[in-house]
Amino acid sequence: MITAYGDSMSGNCYKLQLVLNMLDVDHLWQEMSITNGETQTPEFLAKNPQGKIPLIELDDGRVLSESNAIMGYLAEGSDLIPTDTFSKAKMYQWMFFEQYNHEPYIAVARFIQLYLGLPEDRLAEYHSLHVKGHKALAAMEAELAWQPFLCGSQFTLADIALFAYTHVAHQGGFDLAHYPQINQWLIRIKQQAGFLPMES
Amino acid sequence: MITAYGDSMSGNCYKLQLVLNMLDVDHLWQEMSITNGETQTPEFLAKNPQGKIPLIELDDGRVLSESNAIMGYLAEGSDLIPTDTFSKAKMYQWMFFEQYNHEPYIAVARFIQLYLGLPEDRLAEYHSLHVKGHKALAAMEAELAWQPFLCGSQFTLADIALFAYTHVAHQGGFDLAHYPQINQWLIRIKQQAGFLPMES
Repeated sequence: MITAYGDSMSGNCYKLQLVLNMLDVDHLWQEMSITNGETQTPEFLAKNPQGKIPLIELDDGRVLSESNAIMGYLAEGSDLIPTDTFSKAKMYQWMFFEQYNHEPYIAVARFIQLYLGLPEDRLAEYHSLHVKGHKALAAMEAELAWQPFLCGSQFTLADIALFAYTHVAHQGGFDLAHYPQINQWLIRIKQQAGFLPMES
Repeated sequence: MITAYGDSMSGNCYKLQLVLNMLDVDHLWQEMSITNGETQTPEFLAKNPQGKIPLIELDDGRVLSESNAIMGYLAEGSDLIPTDTFSKAKMYQWMFFEQYNHEPYIAVARFIQLYLGLPEDRLAEYHSLHVKGHKALAAMEAELAWQPFLCGSQFTLADIALFAYTHVAHQGGFDLAHYPQINQWLIRIKQQAGFLPMES
């Protein structure tokens, strides 16, 4: 049995909930609050010295971190990962894009607005995050103009990874009305078997 | 034949050179200068609208970006990727760590020092990058205290990904003398068959 440690308010943790549910993976979900410091207790730091979630723990005590790497582990051999080498690499391309060009801007803008309430001393940062976040959304919009999912006709982990923070980007001040292709894609993802909404 | 577009001064591009050389992959290396704007020409933007390198192009015109995704493609089926599902996920864990917790601090501090010459108006940022970069190095140091490579006894893409900017971290003001395990690991990597130094 896999134990998954996560905060349901976090997009990175929500990715795991989607994969676990879509693939019907037997698991125990251990809800943790980032804001209450539950990821910084001695018990949790013994599992993950970096004090980060999501984290999964196997029966033998081995642990795995980084949301996108965990998804790859959980989905191994499933339809969520293309079998063709190039398509699989494209999937990872979008997942690295998510962690480098999307999450640091969109998730952080959401954090500043939703969790911190847009404090004055972070407004300049917030606005600069918007410039970079819109670049990421524009790249997705362009790709989705000619194919239903980010890697073509197949719904993959790349779509789950980018769905997580894109569908709540408005909570960080991003107006998704400018991105018709992304909006259609969000609907297609919500129609996937095993989809479940993010807790709010 | 694969065409690889890269700037030999960039750690992200150097990762590809290592994999191409270690696996003896038939390819054409197309040297490009980031600082001279060669990644922003109409010709290159037609290949990659994001104007980023490294990029590889297949004979049929398909392209792949994101250094770590490209490495996964090039090394598919080789000894640089563990066959065991969990070990492979650990490899990707460290590769996502590299792009999220290491490169944005260590590569950017190096850029500010080596390329920009430590301008006054970026000193505060430079110092804050050091705090986060040292956290990344400490996480690697802890892992390498009990195993020769980041995923155990096997030398993998995770080692190549993290070698790229770690071995030139001093050019960003990081003193690696504090990290004896990392230093031993750097030596082990330089002893791998097909290793080649980064151009400077």
